[in-house]
Amino acid sequence: MTDTDSQTTRTELDAIIEALHRDKRKRVRKLLRGMHPGKVASLLEALDGAERLALWQHIDDDREEQVLKHLTPLLGVQLRREPDTSDLTDEDEEGEGATTQIARVRDALEAGKFKRVGKAFRQMHPAKAAGLLEALPPAERSTVWEMLDAERAGKILVHLHDEVRARLALEMDEDELVAAARKLDLDDLVDLIQALPSDSGRQLLQAMDVRKRQQLLSMLSYPEDSAGGLMNTDHISVRADVRVGSVLRYLRLLEDLPDHTDKVMVVDRKNRYQGVLRLSRLVTSAPELAVSEVMDSDFQPLDVMLPSHDVARRFEDLDILSAAVVDEDGLLLGRITVDDVMDLIREDSERTMMNMAGLDDEADMFAPVLTSSRRRAVWLGINLVTAFLAAWVIGLFQGTLEQLVALAVLMPIVASMGGIAGSQTLTLVVRGMALGQVEGGNARLLLGKEIGIACLNGVLWALVVAALAVAWFGSWQLGAVIAAAILLNLLCAAVSGLLIPLLLRRVGVDPALAGSVILTTVTDVVGFLAFLGLATLFLL
Amino acid sequence: MTDTDSQTTRTELDAIIEALHRDKRKRVRKLLRGMHPGKVASLLEALDGAERLALWQHIDDDREEQVLKHLTPLLGVQLRREPDTSDLTDEDEEGEGATTQIARVRDALEAGKFKRVGKAFRQMHPAKAAGLLEALPPAERSTVWEMLDAERAGKILVHLHDEVRARLALEMDEDELVAAARKLDLDDLVDLIQALPSDSGRQLLQAMDVRKRQQLLSMLSYPEDSAGGLMNTDHISVRADVRVGSVLRYLRLLEDLPDHTDKVMVVDRKNRYQGVLRLSRLVTSAPELAVSEVMDSDFQPLDVMLPSHDVARRFEDLDILSAAVVDEDGLLLGRITVDDVMDLIREDSERTMMNMAGLDDEADMFAPVLTSSRRRAVWLGINLVTAFLAAWVIGLFQGTLEQLVALAVLMPIVASMGGIAGSQTLTLVVRGMALGQVEGGNARLLLGKEIGIACLNGVLWALVVAALAVAWFGSWQLGAVIAAAILLNLLCAAVSGLLIPLLLRRVGVDPALAGSVILTTVTDVVGFLAFLGLATLFLL
Repeated sequence: MTDTDSQTTRTELDAIIEALHRDKRKRVRKLLRGMHPGKVASLLEALDGAERLALWQHIDDDREEQVLKHLTPLLGVQLRREPDTSDLTDEDEEGEGATTQIARVRDALEAGKFKRVGKAFRQMHPAKAAGLLEALPPAERSTVWEMLDAERAGKILVHLHDEVRARLALEMDEDELVAAARKLDLDDLVDLIQALPSDSGRQLLQAMDVRKRQQLLSMLSYPEDSAGGLMNTDHISVRADVRVGSVLRYLRLLEDLPDHTDKVMVVDRKNRYQGVLRLSRLVTSAPELAVSEVMDSDFQPLDVMLPSHDVARRFEDLDILSAAVVDEDGLLLGRITVDDVMDLIREDSERTMMNMAGLDDEADMFAPVLTSSRRRAVWLGINLVTAFLAAWVIGLFQGTLEQLVALAVLMPIVASMGGIAGSQTLTLVVRGMALGQVEGGNARLLLGKEIGIACLNGVLWALVVAALAVAWFGSWQLGAVIAAAILLNLLCAAVSGLLIPLLLRRVGVDPALAGSVILTTVTDVVGFLAFLGLATLFLL
Repeated sequence: MTDTDSQTTRTELDAIIEALHRDKRKRVRKLLRGMHPGKVASLLEALDGAERLALWQHIDDDREEQVLKHLTPLLGVQLRREPDTSDLTDEDEEGEGATTQIARVRDALEAGKFKRVGKAFRQMHPAKAAGLLEALPPAERSTVWEMLDAERAGKILVHLHDEVRARLALEMDEDELVAAARKLDLDDLVDLIQALPSDSGRQLLQAMDVRKRQQLLSMLSYPEDSAGGLMNTDHISVRADVRVGSVLRYLRLLEDLPDHTDKVMVVDRKNRYQGVLRLSRLVTSAPELAVSEVMDSDFQPLDVMLPSHDVARRFEDLDILSAAVVDEDGLLLGRITVDDVMDLIREDSERTMMNMAGLDDEADMFAPVLTSSRRRAVWLGINLVTAFLAAWVIGLFQGTLEQLVALAVLMPIVASMGGIAGSQTLTLVVRGMALGQVEGGNARLLLGKEIGIACLNGVLWALVVAALAVAWFGSWQLGAVIAAAILLNLLCAAVSGLLIPLLLRRVGVDPALAGSVILTTVTDVVGFLAFLGLATLFLL
C-alpha cells in the first residue's frame, strides 16, 4: 500500500467514522459504495469490535462477498454470522405475552441490526412489507426505506397508501426513484405520479422513454376516478378471423402472459373492440375453430369515462375478472383487472369510514402532528358551530332553567336519544343510496316505515325515561314533558335521517360525509327546543 | 263442446274470476296452469276487455303461444301487443324530472302490467334484478317474485342480502325452491341453506341427491366465516406427471370450464395439493413439457379453517384470482374465487358501517316495522344508560347550576368537542387495527402523537370557545373555566380514543361496534365533570 493510498483511506476512514458516530446512515452507505472492496475490508479490520459490526450493517448485500474476500477468514466468519430473520418476517402468533412483529422490527432497528431488518423486508411479500412500513414511525420508516433497492422499493410503493407513498418516494434520490418507477406496471406508475407533488411527478414522467411517456400521458388525461384512470394497457388482443390454433401459437411465443390475464381481447383491423376470448374457452376449443366462433361478443366493454364507482359495481354484479376499456368510437384502449377493483372497494369503504369521523385523507397514522392537527381542526370547527347553535337554543330558556335546574340535568338525554335514532335511519338510507335502492320511487314508503319505527321506539323509550325522571325528581309533570319531547325528537330524527341524505344528494354533496353533522345539529336543536319549550309552557 | 265440459269451465271460470277480483294472483296463476290452453282461450274470449287483459297478465310466458293458437286472430293480435320493457330495464339517466326505474316498476305493478314487469326482471342481469327487488316494499316484492321461474329465482337469490334471501325463499313452494336450488353453485347453495331457518334448510338439503348432499354437508361443517365456508368444489385438478398436451386434451373434453377458472390445481395420486398450473402458463407452454415443469409449486394453499378475514387479506395482498383450499393433511378440498372474496369485502365494510350505527343485521330496508323497532331498541337502550350516566354527573352539580345558569347553556359544547376529537382518534386506531398496524409495538408512539394533536387543537379551540363565552356572558372567569375544561376533555378524548379499542380487542369485543358508545360516555362524563367541577371550584 503506498503512502497516498493510505492517506486517502485515512481521510475516508475519518469521514465514515464521523458519519457513523453522527448516525448519518445514508452518508455511510454512500461513502462505502464509492470505495473499493479491498479498502472497505481494511477499514473493517482497522476498527474495533463494536464499530466494525456497526459498519458491516451498512455494506450492501451484493457487495458482501467481494469485501469478505479481502478479509482474514476469521473475521469473515465472525461478520458473516448472519442471524436468521425468521422472527422478523413471521406473522404474530397472537400470543398475549410475546412481542409483536412491529415491536421486534423496532427493537432490531434500535439495536442497529440494519442488515437483518433490510433482509427481512426483502424477504416479505411487498404488500406485507408496505403494511409494516406504515406501522413504523417516520424516522424508522426512512431508515428501513434507505436499505431497500430500487426494484423492491417500487414493488412496495404500489401497496402503500397515497400519503405514505408520496412521502417515501420524495425521500429517494431522483435516479433511485426513476429506477424504481421503471419496474412498475403502467397503472401503478400513474397512481404514483398522481400521488406525487406535480413537479416531482413531471420529473418522473420526463425520465421515462418516449413510448412509455406517451402511454402515461394518455392515461393521465383521464380523471383519476374513471375507468380510464384505473385501466392498464398490458392487454393482449387478437383478430376475430384467425383460428384458435394460431392464437395458441401466438401466446406461446409470448412465453408469459401479463398478470391476471383471464381473457384476450378480440378486435377488428382498426383496433375496434369486437368481444373477448376467455382463456378457459380457448383451452377447451378445437384448434381449427375461428376466434369469431368461440369468442364472447356479448361481453360489454367499459366506457373510458365510466366513473370508478360504477366500474366497481359492474365487476361485483357481473363477477368479472377483467374487462376491456374502450373510447367513444369503440377503440380498445386497455383493460381493468379485478385486483385493482378490489383495492378500489377497500379504499372506498376506508374513505367513507374516515370521512364520517372528519378524517379527510388522513391515510398516514404517523403524519406530522401539525399536519394532522390542521386537518382535524376543520371538523372540530364545523362541530363548534353546530354546538354553539344548540347552546344558543338553550340560552333562549335561561329563565326556565334558573327556575327548574332539573331540566339542565335531563336535557342531554333528549338530544342524545334523538341523535342515535336519527343516525340509525341515516345510515340505512346512505347505504341504500350507495346500492341505488333509495330514490324518489320508494322514499315515501321508507318514510312511512321509519315513522312507524320512531313511533314504537319513541313511545317505549319516552315511557322509560319518564318513569326514571319521575323517580328521580318526583314530578309527574316533568315526566310528561320529557316523554313528549323524546317522542317528538325521535319522530323528527326519523324524518331528518331520511330527508337530509336525499337533499344532500340533490345538491351534489356526499351524504356519508356531511349527513351526520347536519343530523346531529337537527336532533340537538329540536331536542333542546322541544324539551325546554314544553317545560316553559307547562311547568312554570 | 259437451255440456259437462262447459260445466267445468263455468266453475273454473268463476273460481278464476273470483281470485282475480280478490287480487289472489298466485291462485289465478295456479288455476290457469292446471287448465288446458284451449279452455284458457275460451275463458279469455268470454271475458270483457279489462278483465281479459288482467287475466292475460297471469298466463305463463311459455304457454302464451299455445293459448294464442286457440284464440281468434284479432284477439290474438290485441293481446300479443306486448309493450316493450326497455323503460323498465334501463338504468336511470339521472335526469332530475324523469321518473326513476324503481318508480317505473312500481307504476307498472300498480297498473297491473305484470307480464311487462316479469319480462323486465327476466331480461335484467340477476344482480341488478336483486337490487331492484330489495328496493321494492314487501308486497310488491312478492308479486314480482311469483312471476319468476325457478331458474331465474335461483340466480337472483344468490345476489340478495341474507335477510331478504331467506324471506323470499320461504315464500316459494317447496318444490319451486328445490328446483331453484338445484341450479345453484354449491357455495351459493351453502349460503342459502345457512340463511334459511334450520328446518327449511334441512328440508332443502334432504331434497338434493346423495352426492350433492354429501358435499353440502361437508361444506356446512366448516364455520361460515372460514375458508371452508367460502370454498366451492368445482375446481379442476390434474396430476403433476402428465404432459401439458394431455392437460389441454383433457380440458377440451370438458368443453367448458367452471366460471372463474384461472388455474387448475395440481395434486398427487392421493389428492394431496402440489401446486397450481395457471391457464396463462398452460397456453404459453410447449405441449411436450410435464405439468411439474410449468406448475407453480410456491403458490400457498389456504387452510380450510383460515378465518375469512385473513382469506380476504391474502387475496388483496397477493392479488390472486383463485386459491386452493386444503385440510390439515394437505388434501385438496376446493377452491375460493375472487368474486366471493369481493362480496365478502363489501359485506364486511357494510356490516361495519351498520354496526357502528347500532343496526345489527338490518339488511332489509323494508323489514317489518316491529322487527326493525325491536332491533334498534337495543342500541337506544344502551345509549340511554350512558345518557343517564352523564345526566347523573350533571345532577351532582345542581347547586352550581342554580347559581350560574350560563353553565347549563355552555356545557353541551364541552362534551360535544370532546366527542368529535375522540371519535377521530378512535376511527384512526380502529382502521389501523384492522390493517394490523396498531399494536403494543407502536401504541405508545401513537399515543404521543395523538396527545400532541390534542394539545394543539385543544389550545386552539379552548381559546376560541373562551373568547365566545366571554363575549356572550361577559365573564373572564367563565372563559377560563371553559377553556380549561375543553383542553382537559380533548386530552382525555385522545387517550380514550386510543386505549378503548386496544382494551376492547384484548377482551375480544369488536372495537368498531362498542368503541364509539364507550368513548362518547367517557367524553360526556369527563366533559361535564371538568366543566361543572372547575366552575364549582373557581366561580362560586
